[in-house]
Parts: sequence; structure tokens; C-alpha cells
Amino acid sequence: MPLCITDIQRVPETVLKHFQGSEVATVHEAQGRKGLLASYMRPIYPGAQLAGTAVTCEVAPGDNWMLHVAVEQCRPGDVLVVSPTSPCEDGYFGDLLATSLKSRGVCGLIIDAGVRDISTLKNMEFAVWSKTVFAQGTVKETLGNVNVPVICAGALINPGDIIVADDDGVVVVNREEAESVLQSVQKRSANEVEKRARFEAGELGLDIYNMRERLADKGLRYVKTIEDI
Amino acid sequence: MPLCITDIQRVPETVLKHFQGSEVATVHEAQGRKGLLASYMRPIYPGAQLAGTAVTCEVAPGDNWMLHVAVEQCRPGDVLVVSPTSPCEDGYFGDLLATSLKSRGVCGLIIDAGVRDISTLKNMEFAVWSKTVFAQGTVKETLGNVNVPVICAGALINPGDIIVADDDGVVVVNREEAESVLQSVQKRSANEVEKRARFEAGELGLDIYNMRERLADKGLRYVKTIEDI
Amino acid sequence: MPLCITDIQRVPETVLKHFQGSEVATVHEAQGRKGLLASYMRPIYPGAQLAGTAVTCEVAPGDNWMLHVAVEQCRPGDVLVVSPTSPCEDGYFGDLLATSLKSRGVCGLIIDAGVRDISTLKNMEFAVWSKTVFAQGTVKETLGNVNVPVICAGALINPGDIIVADDDGVVVVNREEAESVLQSVQKRSANEVEKRARFEAGELGLDIYNMRERLADKGLRYVKTIEDI
Amino acid sequence: MPLCITDIQRVPETVLKHFQGSEVATVHEAQGRKGLLASYMRPIYPGAQLAGTAVTCEVAPGDNWMLHVAVEQCRPGDVLVVSPTSPCEDGYFGDLLATSLKSRGVCGLIIDAGVRDISTLKNMEFAVWSKTVFAQGTVKETLGNVNVPVICAGALINPGDIIVADDDGVVVVNREEAESVLQSVQKRSANEVEKRARFEAGELGLDIYNMRERLADKGLRYVKTIEDI
Amino acid sequence: MPLCITDIQRVPETVLKHFQGSEVATVHEAQGRKGLLASYMRPIYPGAQLAGTAVTCEVAPGDNWMLHVAVEQCRPGDVLVVSPTSPCEDGYFGDLLATSLKSRGVCGLIIDAGVRDISTLKNMEFAVWSKTVFAQGTVKETLGNVNVPVICAGALINPGDIIVADDDGVVVVNREEAESVLQSVQKRSANEVEKRARFEAGELGLDIYNMRERLADKGLRYVKTIEDI
Amino acid sequence: MPLCITDIQRVPETVLKHFQGSEVATVHEAQGRKGLLASYMRPIYPGAQLAGTAVTCEVAPGDNWMLHVAVEQCRPGDVLVVSPTSPCEDGYFGDLLATSLKSRGVCGLIIDAGVRDISTLKNMEFAVWSKTVFAQGTVKETLGNVNVPVICAGALINPGDIIVADDDGVVVVNREEAESVLQSVQKRSANEVEKRARFEAGELGLDIYNMRERLADKGLRYVKTIEDI
Repeated sequence: MPLCITDIQRVPETVLKHFQGSEVATVHEAQGRKGLLASYMRPIYPGAQLAGTAVTCEVAPGDNWMLHVAVEQCRPGDVLVVSPTSPCEDGYFGDLLATSLKSRGVCGLIIDAGVRDISTLKNMEFAVWSKTVFAQGTVKETLGNVNVPVICAGALINPGDIIVADDDGVVVVNREEAESVLQSVQKRSANEVEKRARFEAGELGLDIYNMRERLADKGLRYVKTIEDI
Repeated sequence: MPLCITDIQRVPETVLKHFQGSEVATVHEAQGRKGLLASYMRPIYPGAQLAGTAVTCEVAPGDNWMLHVAVEQCRPGDVLVVSPTSPCEDGYFGDLLATSLKSRGVCGLIIDAGVRDISTLKNMEFAVWSKTVFAQGTVKETLGNVNVPVICAGALINPGDIIVADDDGVVVVNREEAESVLQSVQKRSANEVEKRARFEAGELGLDIYNMRERLADKGLRYVKTIEDI
Repeated sequence: MPLCITDIQRVPETVLKHFQGSEVATVHEAQGRKGLLASYMRPIYPGAQLAGTAVTCEVAPGDNWMLHVAVEQCRPGDVLVVSPTSPCEDGYFGDLLATSLKSRGVCGLIIDAGVRDISTLKNMEFAVWSKTVFAQGTVKETLGNVNVPVICAGALINPGDIIVADDDGVVVVNREEAESVLQSVQKRSANEVEKRARFEAGELGLDIYNMRERLADKGLRYVKTIEDI
Repeated sequence: MPLCITDIQRVPETVLKHFQGSEVATVHEAQGRKGLLASYMRPIYPGAQLAGTAVTCEVAPGDNWMLHVAVEQCRPGDVLVVSPTSPCEDGYFGDLLATSLKSRGVCGLIIDAGVRDISTLKNMEFAVWSKTVFAQGTVKETLGNVNVPVICAGALINPGDIIVADDDGVVVVNREEAESVLQSVQKRSANEVEKRARFEAGELGLDIYNMRERLADKGLRYVKTIEDI
Repeated sequence: MPLCITDIQRVPETVLKHFQGSEVATVHEAQGRKGLLASYMRPIYPGAQLAGTAVTCEVAPGDNWMLHVAVEQCRPGDVLVVSPTSPCEDGYFGDLLATSLKSRGVCGLIIDAGVRDISTLKNMEFAVWSKTVFAQGTVKETLGNVNVPVICAGALINPGDIIVADDDGVVVVNREEAESVLQSVQKRSANEVEKRARFEAGELGLDIYNMRERLADKGLRYVKTIEDI
Repeated sequence: MPLCITDIQRVPETVLKHFQGSEVATVHEAQGRKGLLASYMRPIYPGAQLAGTAVTCEVAPGDNWMLHVAVEQCRPGDVLVVSPTSPCEDGYFGDLLATSLKSRGVCGLIIDAGVRDISTLKNMEFAVWSKTVFAQGTVKETLGNVNVPVICAGALINPGDIIVADDDGVVVVNREEAESVLQSVQKRSANEVEKRARFEAGELGLDIYNMRERLADKGLRYVKTIEDI
């Protein structure tokens, strides 16, 4: 039975705002290396970055009807997350839907399928991460679901979860873990600043991380030339 | 028997000029969603755009000899379309061939294989859509055909057809259908302008396209939470 | 037995400097069309270019421990070349390692796997060619080898070899052949300048390369239309 | 923190036994077209078929240490489900691990990575569905998790769920839905028997499913030749 | 406008019968190396072989409705050829449709998408060449076309053309060229028998094809060891 | 300059014979996990197995001329190893070349490209591991090299090296290391026999390999349910 869930719980804005500007790699590390979408999810133009709350949309292959249903469920700060029920690279989304989402304050789109009109989307500064770019049109004949849990590019995304995306890809933060992940992100970012300064000063990772002894224990052997073995 | 056809019929310039600036997605829709090349055909730099008449060139894998034969058949306003007889990603084309084509007024290249010298091609503003970028050289030992119908990246292209390409990919318009497609493109573009204004004003696709009743008929159910089912 | 070879022979700086600015396609041709890495090795941002001496690093899948060992072996003018022992697209490398390499005068990274923090790497103008971009983290548990010969993206790379990389991809020049390849590169570049002028002037490749007779001998037939056959 | 969960709830044997011999396509349809693993999951030999309860194992890329931990958690009727934390095609599993699993009554393996010794596995009649076949060895250095929920080849699998696999691929049935899915499977299978008899007798789907009127309403037009349009 | 063309011209049975048992590679060579479908089109079980006349069916992604329309157009000796309008790997076809086709004397299916129930299809000895095997179901909501020209796996197929398929893949023979191709196939097969006898007797291709002189002219050099160069 | 090296050093028959029947996975492990060809190299029929000495052949894409040169260099016990200079999936090899090789006592073919006539090859029991199966023909226009070192499917193969291949794939053993690898293979095989007996008896890998303490040291935690954390 096709469903549209209307009252989802979102990570509160007071928490979400602190994820703005966070990097995907940092968030992924901070939450124990989980939640990353597959590496084929790429931004349609370099430099895009977003953090927002997920409105999910499960669609049939080659059918974008449910996107219109999903748009109505979106609020400012949301990201639309679209996943087809089987692999498809059709262009589900173009500049008209982007205009509609933008007018509702939506910050971007994550779609495990294709998009089109990417030149216009770039001019609009509407951020999109997709599996591919393809002008192939879709139909409006088959229903799907809005705001149910979806698996998108290999990651489980629940409505209301946080999506963080940048040039490295896309990561999802579970809604209930958002606050604890945030603390971990902040600690990690601070630590990276300190480490970067040491690396810039020419210190080696071997010393910063005290690796030399453990490397020797594991059996690493330094030789001048291969003949020395 | 290897052939070079010299007197092909092209879509007339009076029609072609109206395709300048048309978008691939719009043209594809306007002609009933056909003629799109596979999504792996990507521009070598963002922002390139062209509309031109096809000179076709069928080549052996790893052999670019026939490209030199094809160049001589090109006129201002043409696009060179290259398709190997079996899948190949070698770099058939570089800056010297681009210089030659440019000197003849050719606006770009569509190649279901590799290209090289892409940094120079970008500086020359020579537009290329290709399957890949690869510096691998080719030989000049085996003949092919110029200006025969080819299947390029999954689409049938006849010499003289119109090629439209932009950041979304590449589409071919059959020569005999060019005028009727043009009318459809123009109608469609006008319609999109109107629709965009309504979306910008915050109107929903659900209402613009009168979808609510049909969605209900198909069985879409709105519930507050998943527990309400 | 995991090894780190410390005293490798590098192509001398007096030779290496002449490769600066050379194009991958030209170098590949100049050395008899060998040494090219697979076409999936792409720069993380357009316009990057480098020529440097290889420090090689063979790593386990999903484990970047040896990169820290390799960093210590790098000198100004080196390029770090990383190859996993089985296919892997994890993000072995990010901005901290790049900071470390940069502080040692290393000009870039060639990695048959993933990288992350690419937005920062681009801002740092640290050049990277990789198989993919992926934020997935790696561990530090398993040893590998530094400065042994590696096969990277289908090409054999010895420590001390020259790596040339640009928007077209990556090519390796064997250390012992570097001087003779250099001469060939210079001759080839000069020849291309002359050829480009002739192409710009509208001369055809058919005439520049004297192809017409050989094409006829091989059986190429010119006909006005397909009905003329 | 790496975990091994020891007391999982399995679908009871009284329910599981009725899934023996069920077809993947039927089970997938019966539960509303969900739970299918990606199409790249293929049996290592034709004709293999199983239904069992999942013991899940999340592993690091190139590291099969946790498989030994998982084996101890397996009981007769179980299927081992292995998923790496990032894409990997190494050969995590061979005949020794299969011997160990077989001695515990485990009916097969589902692995989103590589396997090896497939000739011996086939002789042992040990059923395996994998992403690839690859002799590449793995190490035992990094921990993972046993009996946590995993995403395997794009599907969410919880420990204790039912796995059904055959020549068409692999499908997971959620533990809590197993009984209702079973009823649906049985109804569907009965219906297929009846339909097959009608198709064998030469009746058309157009008539069996009463499609003719709906096709006409949607606008399907029958013409003798393309010239009749 | 969706169409079903009912009166197609087929290659006559008197010609078709001589293609029975022909090999794909031989037919492909005999007609000048054209008409081959992409290499990803594989039989679902080894040893299948067919030659038949094409009934074509163009379908929407994830929608198999038109297959039922196509079945009614099939006669004994036909092969059903299915091509989606954009790339899709869903399981459009299973044992019920195969039963229906078999009852009409159809010899097999060529589909640039997925199939399911392949174990049953194998038991039925119903021959299928497909892009993939996938249990994913399809819907019946969107129309397509029957018996229009289609591009299937990169080859142009017209209704009534001959399809030849075996363990090497699939090739199409244009209806109007069928008789002349047949003559060429028969000549070629006879020639192969003679050549095979000579190879079996230990004669070398170098001598059978008189290659030695031409190889020397092109510059092939025989040396005892690499040091002899 | 195209070369054919005629006097290569092969691993002696007295050593080679002991590799007959060795498994790819065992050989790969025995030599320190190197020498494996990429996982896309698959046998054209299940159950094939070989060990032989390599005659190498480097070919242009789509050109099989040099195969005829290579055949003459083959002796009983050899395996022909073919690698194109850029990726190509054309069918370089069919039943006539197989007949020629078989008449010379060659035991099989390893080709990083396509083959055809696979049904006949299977009937002949001629063993082939290839990248793909494709009926696409090749030309005889461009020279290559015989018995030079080649990189084939990512592995470096020298003429005279041992090739071992089975259902798991293909591995190369360096000629100079053959004897020491052989000893390691034999030791390893003996060890596996003993281990298999223990696994069959129900002993766990955790105990056979004494893993429990090391797992605990690394931090593995056993809990009854996920709520116990």
C-alpha cells in the first residue's frame, strides 16, 4: 500500500545548525565509520555542501510521480532523498522540481538515480548528489512511498535523519544519535586543527602517532636496497 | 567495402540555427523521448553546448585513420560523430585534429571512445562529448566508413541529422523530423517558462498538474505516522 | 616480509626538470606508447599537472598504515605512488597526509584507490590522481612495502621512475630510459608545433601525412550517395 | 566497539521449514517486492537453493578474522551472511571455513565480496552466493561485528531473518513478518499453478488478466503496418 | 503514440531453416562484421542455440505490460526481442510468460534487461539471452510499442529480421539481406572445415595465410633473446 | 620495433609437472599472495584446470595478427598469454587457433580480452580464461610483440613463467622462484589436509588458530543481546 507519512520527527534546528559546514569525512569518522553512501554518489558541480534533514521518497524505476507528493512534505532545512526500488539512471529531477523545492526552502537533493538540467541547477545553486546525469524522462503512472525508511546507495536513511554532503560524497546521521555525533564531530575537528599544525611544521605521522615501535614489532624491516635482504 | 559518402543531405541552416541554445532534455522530450545517447557520454569540460549537423565516421578499435578522411567531408556547422565497430576507449582524437576541424568551422566532436589533450581542447573551446578520457594512442592501418548510418552510444545517427549536446548529454534529431521537432521544442520551452513562474511562486506540482484526485484513485494513503496504518 | 627500501635511485633533477610541463599524451607517444595507467585514474580537480620521481607504497586493502612509513622516504620533487594489493576504493588519504607530504616538498599523489577531503586538497593545490573519491576511512593494522616495484592501475612502476600526470591521466617513464625519452619528447613537441600551424592554416591531414594514395590502395571508395555503390 | 551478539532470535524451525523449496522471485513478490539483494549476487554453481536463518557478520575490507567468530554462533539451519564495511572483492572464504560451517549444519553462505576454492565448494555441495570469485587472500588483524544488522548488497538483514536463495539471486524475509509472508507465498504459488495451466493451454495474458480494455483506454493503437499511422 | 504493428514481413521459413545450427561468430563474419549485440548479452544456461524471426517489443523501465501485447503477435519460429527505453535490469520475464510463448511455438527471448525463474526456464529448455538475472518484479502501467524498429544492446533490430544466438552471444541479420548472408555463411562454413583440417595436421596460420612476407615487410624482427636487439 | 623472441627460458618440465593439479588459491598463498590476475579473468566453462609455461603475446586492440606469430613459438606444455596494449573485448581467438595450438601440445589460453566459438572450445576441452566472450572479429594489420614481458589483467608475466589456472582464476609464478614456490605449495597442501580433518571433526578455527585471547586483547566483546551494551 503506497503511503505518505506526514508527521515525521526531525533532528531539531538547534542541533542541525551545528552540522552546517561539517565535512563528510569528519562526520563519518565521528560516528564510528558508518552511514556513508556509495562512492558513485557525486555532486553535479564541485564545491556544493549541505547539511539538512531527510524527507525520503521511494519511487518506481522510470517514474517520478511521487516526487511531487514528497515536495509538499518538505520544509525549510530539509533535503529530499530519492531512492528507486530497483537500479535506474533515468533523469527523475530537473529545474522545475528544483524551483519548487527551492521555493519551500529545501537545500538540496540526494538521488540514487539520474538528474537533468544540471547546467540550470548549477546556476540556481541548487545542490544535488546523484548516481548519474541523464536527460532520459520519466513517467507518472506508479505510486511509491514518502517518508518511509529507504536504502539509498547502500545506506539506511530514515525520515528526519541528518544528511551531510560535500565534494567527498554523502553521509547520513541517525536522528537519535545526532547530538552525540555532534559532540564527537566537534572534538574531532579540534583535534585535526592541532594535528595539521604539527604536520605543517614537518613532524611525521610516525612520531605524532608513535608508530615506530609497533611497526618494528609487526616485523617491518628497513633496508638500503633490495639486495640487502 | 570501406566507403566515404560525399554528398549527404543536411538539415538546412535555416532550421538548424533555431536549435542553437536548445537544451538536450527539452529536445529529447519534444521528440517523444527518443534519440538520447547513453549517459556515459559526458562533456570534457562543464558548460559546453552545441547544435550541429552530423558527419559520421565508423572506425576500427584503436585506429583513427578514417578521422582524417572524415575531416575533409566536414563543413561549417557540422559536428563530427565517431563510433568504433566494437567497444574501445583509446584516445582517437587530440588537439591537432581539433585544430583541423576548427579551421573548417566544425563546432564539436561526439565520440563513443576516448579523447586526449583535453586541457588544450578546453583552452581552444573545442566542445567534445566522449565515453572517456585516455591518452592511449591509435594507429592508422584499418579502413572504416564515413557518412554511413552509425549506432553511437546506443542511438542511431544518420549523416545530416542534428546533434544537440550540453551538460546533460547528447541527443540526435532525425533530419526528416527536424522541423516538426523544432516546433515542439519551441512550444515546450514556452510552457516551461510559465510553469517555472508558478513553481517559483510556491504553487505545488500536485496542483499545477491536478494530481491529487488521480493519486487518491490509485490508492495513495496519507497517514500521520507509520503507526497509523 | 614487509620492507621499506631507503636508498632508491631517482632520475636526477637535471633530467626531471625538463619533464616539467610535458603532456602525458606526448610522453606516452615519445616512449613508444607504453607506461600509461588505466583511464580510470582521474585528477580530483581539473588543471592539475606534475612531473616527479616515484616513491612507491604497496598497501593492504582498507589499511593506510604504510603511507606514514612512505612519507618519511619522500624528498622534494617526489610523487607518492600508492597501490593496494587487491582492488579497493577506500579513502586512504586526506588533508593531514597531504599537509605532511607538502611540508616535505612532495608534488602529488597517484593512488589506485580512493581519496577524501578533496575540497581541502584542491584549496591546498595538492595534486592527486585517484581511482575514486570516497570518504570511507582506513585502519592501521597490516604492513605492506615501501619502494618495491608495484603495478599501479595496470602499469609497472619502479621507485625512482618519473611520473608525469595531467588532465589526460598518468604515465610512468622508466628511470633508465628517462634521458632517451626526454629527447624524443622534445623532438615530438617541436614537430607538433609545426603540424599545428599547418592544420590551423586549413591544410588537411590527408595531405600533411600523404594518406590519399595509401587509402586508395587499401580500397577506400568515394561515392556521392549510398545509391551509387 | 566490536561486538559479538550471542542470543539472537531466529525464525522458528516450524516456520522456516515451509520456506524450503520456495523460489526467490515468489518470496520477493509475496512480501510486496522488497528484500531483494543486488543482481550481482550470483551462485557459484547453478542449481543451488537454500532457505535458512541469518547469522550476520560485518568485516573490514580484506580481513576475514570475524568469520571465525561468526562460525561459533552458527547452528543447524543457519546461513552465514557476510558484508564488508566498504566494497571489497577479496576471497574471504574457502573450503576450510566451508568444512567448519558444514560440520555445524550451516546450509550456505551469502557474501557481498569474493570467495575461493569454488571447485571444492561445489564438490562439497556447499551453497554460496557471492559478488565475485577471487583467490585473493585476506588477513586477520581487524575486528568487526557478529549478529548486528547489516546492509548486504543493498538489503537490510537482521540476525535471525530468513534468507532464501536460488539461481535468481537472494532475498531476505524479516523475522517478524515471516509467518504472514509464508501465507502469501503459499497463496501465490497455488495461483501460479493455475495460471501456468491456462498459459500452457494457449490462453493469452491479455485475456487471463483482462488487459484489452485498459490497453485501449491508455491509447494503444493496433495498425497493420507503420504506413497505416 | 503507442503502437502495435500486426502485419510484419518475416524472413521466409525456407530461408530461416538454413540458419538453424549456424554459429553467431560465423554469421557475424559472413555479413561483414555487423549486427552483433553487446557482449553483456549472455545465455541463462550454456548450450542454448536458436535462429528465429524477430518480434520486437519496446518497454518502459520496470514495466512489462507490453510483453503481453507482444505475445499475441508471435508465431511459431519467432524470437521475442525486448528493449527498454532506458537502461533497466528488472526481471521483466519469468516462467509464466515463457509458458505462453512456448505454447505459441516461440523459440526464445532476447532481452536487454533482466529475467527471473531461470531454473524453471532451463528445465523448460526455453532459451534466453539477457543482460542480467534479477528477481525484481515489474508493473503494468505504461505502454510501449510492438514491432517497431528497436536498438537492443547496441544493435538495430527490425521486426522480421533473423536473430541467431548461441554461447557466443547474439547477432541480427537484416531481413532483406538474409539470402545473401546465407550464401556467405555456407561458403564460410565450408572454408572453415578445410582450414580446420590443415590446422589439425599441424600446419601453421603463418603458412596457411601466407603471412611471413607481409610480417617482414611491416618490420617484424625475430631475435633469440632480448639482448640481441 | 615489433619483436618475436625465439629462445626463451622456461621453467623445466621436472618442476612444472609438480604444479599439475595445484590450486590457484594455494599457489597464490604459497608465494606470499602475489601474482594473481584480476578477478574478471574467468574460465569459459567450469572445471577447467591447467599449469603450463607462458608464451606471451602483446597485441593491438582489435588485431589478432600476432597470435599466428606466437603459435609458432609454442611447445608442448606451454600456455599462450595474450594481452592487448589497451583495453579491448574483441574475440581474438576461436576454434581454428585453438586447433592449431592443440596440435602443438599447448594446454590453454589466458587472454585479457574476448574469445569466441566457446561451445566448440568446450567440446575440444581446450581451456581458456578470458575477460569476456564476444563474437566480434579482429583484423590482421598491426604488429605487436611475442615473448616480451607483459602486464596481463594487472599481473606482470614474463615468458617462461608458470601459469596456474582453475575455477578460482589465474596466478603466475615467476620462473626463478618456481622451485621455492613449489616447496611452499607442497607444505601448504599438506597442512590443509590436516586442518580440514580438524574442521570436519567440528573443531573451531577460534581454537585451531588460538584466536580467543588475541580477540579479547583487541577488544571484542561478547554480549547476549544488543540491549546488554
